[in-house]
Amino acid sequence: MNDTKKLLEDVRQGRVTVDDALLLLKKEPFTDLGFAKPDMHRGILQGAGEVIYGAGKTSAQIVNIIKAMKESGQENVLITRLSDDKAADIKKEIPVEYFPEAGIAIAGKCREIDGIGRIAVVSAGTSDMRVAEEAFLTARFLGNEVIRIYDAGVAGIHRLFARLDDIMSAKVVIAVAGMEGALASVVGGLCEAPVIAVPTSVGYGASFNGLSALLSMLNSCASGVSVVNIDNGFGAGYQASLINHVS
Amino acid sequence: MNDTKKLLEDVRQGRVTVDDALLLLKKEPFTDLGFAKPDMHRGILQGAGEVIYGAGKTSAQIVNIIKAMKESGQENVLITRLSDDKAADIKKEIPVEYFPEAGIAIAGKCREIDGIGRIAVVSAGTSDMRVAEEAFLTARFLGNEVIRIYDAGVAGIHRLFARLDDIMSAKVVIAVAGMEGALASVVGGLCEAPVIAVPTSVGYGASFNGLSALLSMLNSCASGVSVVNIDNGFGAGYQASLINHVS
Amino acid sequence: MNDTKKLLEDVRQGRVTVDDALLLLKKEPFTDLGFAKPDMHRGILQGAGEVIYGAGKTSAQIVNIIKAMKESGQENVLITRLSDDKAADIKKEIPVEYFPEAGIAIAGKCREIDGIGRIAVVSAGTSDMRVAEEAFLTARFLGNEVIRIYDAGVAGIHRLFARLDDIMSAKVVIAVAGMEGALASVVGGLCEAPVIAVPTSVGYGASFNGLSALLSMLNSCASGVSVVNIDNGFGAGYQASLINHVS
Amino acid sequence: MNDTKKLLEDVRQGRVTVDDALLLLKKEPFTDLGFAKPDMHRGILQGAGEVIYGAGKTSAQIVNIIKAMKESGQENVLITRLSDDKAADIKKEIPVEYFPEAGIAIAGKCREIDGIGRIAVVSAGTSDMRVAEEAFLTARFLGNEVIRIYDAGVAGIHRLFARLDDIMSAKVVIAVAGMEGALASVVGGLCEAPVIAVPTSVGYGASFNGLSALLSMLNSCASGVSVVNIDNGFGAGYQASLINHVS
Amino acid sequence: MNDTKKLLEDVRQGRVTVDDALLLLKKEPFTDLGFAKPDMHRGILQGAGEVIYGAGKTSAQIVNIIKAMKESGQENVLITRLSDDKAADIKKEIPVEYFPEAGIAIAGKCREIDGIGRIAVVSAGTSDMRVAEEAFLTARFLGNEVIRIYDAGVAGIHRLFARLDDIMSAKVVIAVAGMEGALASVVGGLCEAPVIAVPTSVGYGASFNGLSALLSMLNSCASGVSVVNIDNGFGAGYQASLINHVS
Amino acid sequence: MNDTKKLLEDVRQGRVTVDDALLLLKKEPFTDLGFAKPDMHRGILQGAGEVIYGAGKTSAQIVNIIKAMKESGQENVLITRLSDDKAADIKKEIPVEYFPEAGIAIAGKCREIDGIGRIAVVSAGTSDMRVAEEAFLTARFLGNEVIRIYDAGVAGIHRLFARLDDIMSAKVVIAVAGMEGALASVVGGLCEAPVIAVPTSVGYGASFNGLSALLSMLNSCASGVSVVNIDNGFGAGYQASLINHVS
Amino acid sequence: MNDTKKLLEDVRQGRVTVDDALLLLKKEPFTDLGFAKPDMHRGILQGAGEVIYGAGKTSAQIVNIIKAMKESGQENVLITRLSDDKAADIKKEIPVEYFPEAGIAIAGKCREIDGIGRIAVVSAGTSDMRVAEEAFLTARFLGNEVIRIYDAGVAGIHRLFARLDDIMSAKVVIAVAGMEGALASVVGGLCEAPVIAVPTSVGYGASFNGLSALLSMLNSCASGVSVVNIDNGFGAGYQASLINHVS
Amino acid sequence: MNDTKKLLEDVRQGRVTVDDALLLLKKEPFTDLGFAKPDMHRGILQGAGEVIYGAGKTSAQIVNIIKAMKESGQENVLITRLSDDKAADIKKEIPVEYFPEAGIAIAGKCREIDGIGRIAVVSAGTSDMRVAEEAFLTARFLGNEVIRIYDAGVAGIHRLFARLDDIMSAKVVIAVAGMEGALASVVGGLCEAPVIAVPTSVGYGASFNGLSALLSMLNSCASGVSVVNIDNGFGAGYQASLINHVS
Repeated sequence: MNDTKKLLEDVRQGRVTVDDALLLLKKEPFTDLGFAKPDMHRGILQGAGEVIYGAGKTSAQIVNIIKAMKESGQENVLITRLSDDKAADIKKEIPVEYFPEAGIAIAGKCREIDGIGRIAVVSAGTSDMRVAEEAFLTARFLGNEVIRIYDAGVAGIHRLFARLDDIMSAKVVIAVAGMEGALASVVGGLCEAPVIAVPTSVGYGASFNGLSALLSMLNSCASGVSVVNIDNGFGAGYQASLINHVS
Repeated sequence: MNDTKKLLEDVRQGRVTVDDALLLLKKEPFTDLGFAKPDMHRGILQGAGEVIYGAGKTSAQIVNIIKAMKESGQENVLITRLSDDKAADIKKEIPVEYFPEAGIAIAGKCREIDGIGRIAVVSAGTSDMRVAEEAFLTARFLGNEVIRIYDAGVAGIHRLFARLDDIMSAKVVIAVAGMEGALASVVGGLCEAPVIAVPTSVGYGASFNGLSALLSMLNSCASGVSVVNIDNGFGAGYQASLINHVS
Repeated sequence: MNDTKKLLEDVRQGRVTVDDALLLLKKEPFTDLGFAKPDMHRGILQGAGEVIYGAGKTSAQIVNIIKAMKESGQENVLITRLSDDKAADIKKEIPVEYFPEAGIAIAGKCREIDGIGRIAVVSAGTSDMRVAEEAFLTARFLGNEVIRIYDAGVAGIHRLFARLDDIMSAKVVIAVAGMEGALASVVGGLCEAPVIAVPTSVGYGASFNGLSALLSMLNSCASGVSVVNIDNGFGAGYQASLINHVS
Repeated sequence: MNDTKKLLEDVRQGRVTVDDALLLLKKEPFTDLGFAKPDMHRGILQGAGEVIYGAGKTSAQIVNIIKAMKESGQENVLITRLSDDKAADIKKEIPVEYFPEAGIAIAGKCREIDGIGRIAVVSAGTSDMRVAEEAFLTARFLGNEVIRIYDAGVAGIHRLFARLDDIMSAKVVIAVAGMEGALASVVGGLCEAPVIAVPTSVGYGASFNGLSALLSMLNSCASGVSVVNIDNGFGAGYQASLINHVS
Repeated sequence: MNDTKKLLEDVRQGRVTVDDALLLLKKEPFTDLGFAKPDMHRGILQGAGEVIYGAGKTSAQIVNIIKAMKESGQENVLITRLSDDKAADIKKEIPVEYFPEAGIAIAGKCREIDGIGRIAVVSAGTSDMRVAEEAFLTARFLGNEVIRIYDAGVAGIHRLFARLDDIMSAKVVIAVAGMEGALASVVGGLCEAPVIAVPTSVGYGASFNGLSALLSMLNSCASGVSVVNIDNGFGAGYQASLINHVS
Repeated sequence: MNDTKKLLEDVRQGRVTVDDALLLLKKEPFTDLGFAKPDMHRGILQGAGEVIYGAGKTSAQIVNIIKAMKESGQENVLITRLSDDKAADIKKEIPVEYFPEAGIAIAGKCREIDGIGRIAVVSAGTSDMRVAEEAFLTARFLGNEVIRIYDAGVAGIHRLFARLDDIMSAKVVIAVAGMEGALASVVGGLCEAPVIAVPTSVGYGASFNGLSALLSMLNSCASGVSVVNIDNGFGAGYQASLINHVS
Repeated sequence: MNDTKKLLEDVRQGRVTVDDALLLLKKEPFTDLGFAKPDMHRGILQGAGEVIYGAGKTSAQIVNIIKAMKESGQENVLITRLSDDKAADIKKEIPVEYFPEAGIAIAGKCREIDGIGRIAVVSAGTSDMRVAEEAFLTARFLGNEVIRIYDAGVAGIHRLFARLDDIMSAKVVIAVAGMEGALASVVGGLCEAPVIAVPTSVGYGASFNGLSALLSMLNSCASGVSVVNIDNGFGAGYQASLINHVS
Repeated sequence: MNDTKKLLEDVRQGRVTVDDALLLLKKEPFTDLGFAKPDMHRGILQGAGEVIYGAGKTSAQIVNIIKAMKESGQENVLITRLSDDKAADIKKEIPVEYFPEAGIAIAGKCREIDGIGRIAVVSAGTSDMRVAEEAFLTARFLGNEVIRIYDAGVAGIHRLFARLDDIMSAKVVIAVAGMEGALASVVGGLCEAPVIAVPTSVGYGASFNGLSALLSMLNSCASGVSVVNIDNGFGAGYQASLINHVS
């Protein structure tokens, strides 16, 4: 911003001609106008800030990115989709806490809880747990109180109903399920809060690596359900946190 | 059968040589051996008997088939996938009872109720009704007591639970649903009877004309669920009747 | 509720034995316990209350449902996916306001605006307008201030940027786009609010009736984007309203 | 159950007020009302009881689940989708019988045979054997007499016909086939019993991992055929057992 | 041809230089060398000669093509995929024989029967008849003796077996089936002749307009089966004729 | 542009303070900075200028857009995907030349030919002509000399080779084909120019409305082939014109 | 056969009663009637005889099958889809000749060449060679003279044309190609013989493991092309041999 | 060429008769007429010349091809899709420069820069870099000045805009993106040059290995975008080079 202001003052005081200023303004509309700043103040928001997508990066690359972030002032960093091996490698270089069941490491600490209310993460089966934990930790990292309701698939619907209070009192519900993904519709029919559905690739045969659950959730007969990509626990936790911080 | 017996007697009495008999037997193993007879006594079983698939046939063709059936002794005939127009045309020629909400006409009458117990037809939404009615009438025609539990989709799950007694006491349950097809899993989780799931083409967008519900049902996390083709109410009613007559 | 309370009082005063009461409670857990009531007080929430999905229903059916709703106290009803013809038919029977560009009619009036902030509906092309208007009117009906930013596809990205203020100040953004659906990612990258993406079936050839936009939106590289079914403007407006009323 | 009964008695004897009882009943409708009990008495029925889906679980996890089941009184447990290695590991901890060709282990013993009649498992090729054996052992474990008719694909149809007696006398037929899945239609045309078709992922190229067989079976021109997921031998054996125990 | 020969003679006699001849030869390798002639002598073979694909052409266009063919010496022309209306229009202009059940018209006459043996066209259901008839008439037009075995689907396999003699004695078999397309495998398993399989779009739901039958036929467990496009009766009849004329 | 320049001059001369100028610049970075100008000077380039996509617009809407364009100085407008009826309606209001075989109307006139060389449009069959003509007219309208080589499918490859000179001398080749789309590979193998391949929806059955040709072209074994959407003749003509004007 | 004949003679001479004979005939129609014999005399024809599909079988299993075949008189056996390792294992037990580039081993020897003419195997790229060699060796094993024309893809069409004589003089042509599969159409357009097209899984990205080539070949604009499964070189060689032995 | 010229001279001087010459010319139209020569002078153009597709070839095979090329005068060879291991192996035999981030090795050197202007390679994320580098090096090898603009995905659109000058001044733009592929549309909307879009297989879940990006790019709402196969960086670089050399 300073740059633009300075340019305008240069124009005012005749140090820069109008035409030169025009050229500069046209040439770099975004950087000159401080457009890059959103990238700064938005912090974690577009994943470029405090979140590292760990898949497909080497331990060394991840360590370097964390260091660079710290240098630019980001104390708290969430790293997703880590293997146990990579996490161990990173730990040797930088102090991080690793959550193997979520494939997530956290450098620094989670944000203070400052959301509107609680987020509930409901999952259908134990095989969906990694995705559910990714959603849980992401939302927790971003400053939300989160409760977990696992192994509550619709084939044993009383287990889901036993937790009805928790589901109904949440401000946002994340529904994680593979196979036929029916959980999203049942949960969507039970609660008044927005539901973020996460299809998982759990299943075999005609689950087609999560396609079945994905289509199921997109076609939910319950209103108030929106969907993220297959296995995208992070995306659901992130979206839920945005909603839980709307104000 | 007579033919083969007669042939053997001809052989015995020297009216036919062994080689000629051998040739005849080899040449026509099925007709000679009365293999075609199963086609007779199995009656309705393979759809060739007392059931007419009405789609793609003219009213005149259907009338002719019914007449031919009657002549060969089939008094009771079920005709599926009829339009109102065709049904009206047929009625002019032959006395049939037409059920417009099912697209079914019945010539003659339904079989006496002789199944093991009751069949329940559960459907998710009013749009699924035509398919549900096709299943209902097929099962009724084939000699089953059938109860209908409609508009019991999982988004308003209390409506489903209000009929739990009926669902739990049925010997076979037919679950009819479009969109995300979650009904099959919920019903499959609630009852101990075999569940025949019928995906319907109800929905839009990513329902892909029933594909969503089909995949959902094939991946049901509840055991005891098997699936028929999209919109195949007849197939479900038929299979349910077979099960309700196992003995 | 009364029923359960009355039953308990009957137990207390010895008019009903404990065992009989137990049986009644077990037999009808949902109706007895007033479980159906959520269906009442949740009102519009699951679409069973104040919203009618007009596709596949006759004008007469719709009129009857509206009348029944009014009788049970629902003064304000939203009817989606109406054709001009059906709307005209309904108008003859009941006073409704019809919005042809959205295919929506409203009986009664919209809720007072009581959301947290504004919802922005951004759409890519004029062909996406019907879906965008469905989202717009749904959100407005449910008590939200909504602004529309149409014809802001990414091929002419300056038109989108000209409305950056409106997009950035919204509490929830609905991004409506067919063809390649890139709008959702660009908008998701520009704003900090949760984005509900609506793929539309606009396009031809390899758009495969909205599949292209759907996949595109599910794979958005921007965080904070969740997706509803193809052409599901109502679902997006509904989910956005839920979010804009979180508290 | 005791809890609810006790609560009612407390109400009767004035130890708990009606309002407090009402609150308790509403808050926990399911656990309080003994709703979990179906989960108990239904036993194996929904797979939560005596069946363990072994894929994706470690040997240690499986051992723990079996032990927990035994402690709660489940003597007989079926574990599916085991590798030879895992089975060996489990054997070191718990006495189980392992059937490598089915990938199944059984702790305890199979139920006494108490079904209505016999179940026939027909399979097309030797490559389909693992799925067929899974169906066979599941049905046997659940108390059914089961006969196996393997390598009876339609390309050598006389081998199938040589076993016609066995097929025709079965109360339920399970048809297991990969590639083009034609077996289901041929068997469905030959017998009067309900047929449960299991598509397998056997094949290459345009079999698309079982999609070809799946579609083929869903479109069977023979009535009385319903379908389970690709490679789901357990589901077919389970459904067949339900049918063979209808009464 | 003359042109090239003439050129060579010109070279020989010095009327054209070697370099000029070289240039001419290089520039027009195909026309100069009479390459177009194969198009002449191959006649019907590539469909450019005596066969007209009628779909998407107006009656007037078809009439003009037939007239042009006749002028260039083609007396006998096969026109496929005609509607009754177009056929009637064409008849007014040119004498043709129209076969409504095949959607085919023939101007002139069929070739004398000169194939190696007989071709058998086997079809599964009456709905497949149009495609089967297209195959039948194409093969007949091209000089083959053809027998028809219709309504011989695998659900009533005895009807197929009743015609075993005809199938087994054919030199080529065309198997036409929609739905699950099992007919191709069964026929392929019964006969030693090459089988040309034609999937049809007959069916509904998960037949996906012939995809099910197509995949089924491509995955046939019987050797000796090759496949043409969905509903491509002409292609099968043409290929069968080629095979029946191999020498 | 003037606006920003004027603002800068206002700053220079003290008519506007630096802070006010800064605010104005930040608030409307795009319009203020003349960012919209690309939209102006790019003219036709992004389809927003001189091209109207006629599908899904009424005649009245199209007439209005043309008039608005003319008022803003665009004399020459291309309207694609017109029906004969719409074209007739438009003609009543505005002088346009209509090309029915391309579904295109042109108001005003084509640009003077100013491309580098010639563009060749090669198409496989007569059914592909509409798409080919759309490409042809688009490229011609945009100032290119274009030659047409139609009905040159690979099944009669000598017809293609007869035009080798034309193909080889073109600066860009557009290859239009449906069905199996092999033309793109053959042409790509024959010429050194960039080839823009246009799959068409011509075909039936397993052509899946152009999917077959699309995949074929994307997998071309010939280098130098890129692909546009199914039936997108306009896109190919446009891209070819861009290439033919690179300088 | 003997059995049935013997039975008839027993009947004739009174050693067996007519009723007993009838029972025997009905009970085992196929084996009794010598129906299994086709399985015998058809030999290799349905793959059950002299051909072993090696994929998914252990070396030991293959050795056992070969030994069993030899014992029942089959001297010559073709084993497909072998890895080098398995081939080496088999060689230790049984003398076989192994062709690594085809993944085929032959025990015994090829049939004497007795076909009508030559079969040509044309393939597009070197990567397609394994499939092409499988077709080549299968056809050679079955008694055909086969010529190979490899690396003749359409991107370098002169290499294909250089072998025009060989292609045009073949009685059957097998066209093997991955990627876009255009070879089948070009070859189909050039020759008058029946063409068996084999799509291969060669390619990447949008080749979708052979789907692209498969669809391409099914939609071939050239008549006289039929298609086998992806990578099914054996099937093409087998079908070609059938055709080359029609008589 | 020599051969044909020599033949003509032989004709001229009577050493060969006209008929013999005619025969020779007809028999081998392509080789005789020097048709193979295009293959020579076109050099790299169809990939047969100076480019080796390394995937699926052994190091030894690649070395042999390079040597053969060198012997026939090709000094400069580009080898794509190499692993580090293979590259190391090749280096032992032949001097090549290996670029691990592109999987490319170059024997000899790049062509002198002789294109019309600059090519810009824009990529969305770091994971897309390998494909982007393949495009970059291919274009550079073929004689183009190329600039790289990486990590410029639309979720952080200011990074893309910061390089607007470079994008807008390029003669051709290559847009490389996985996931939702929105980059192609945004870039296509910003620049006037032809855009070659390369979808990558980067992503997970509903990216379906690049299908999402592929469909997105084919449906781009921006004109002037054409598409190559998933991950086909070479194809894009090659096509861009053709365009940048049009003259």
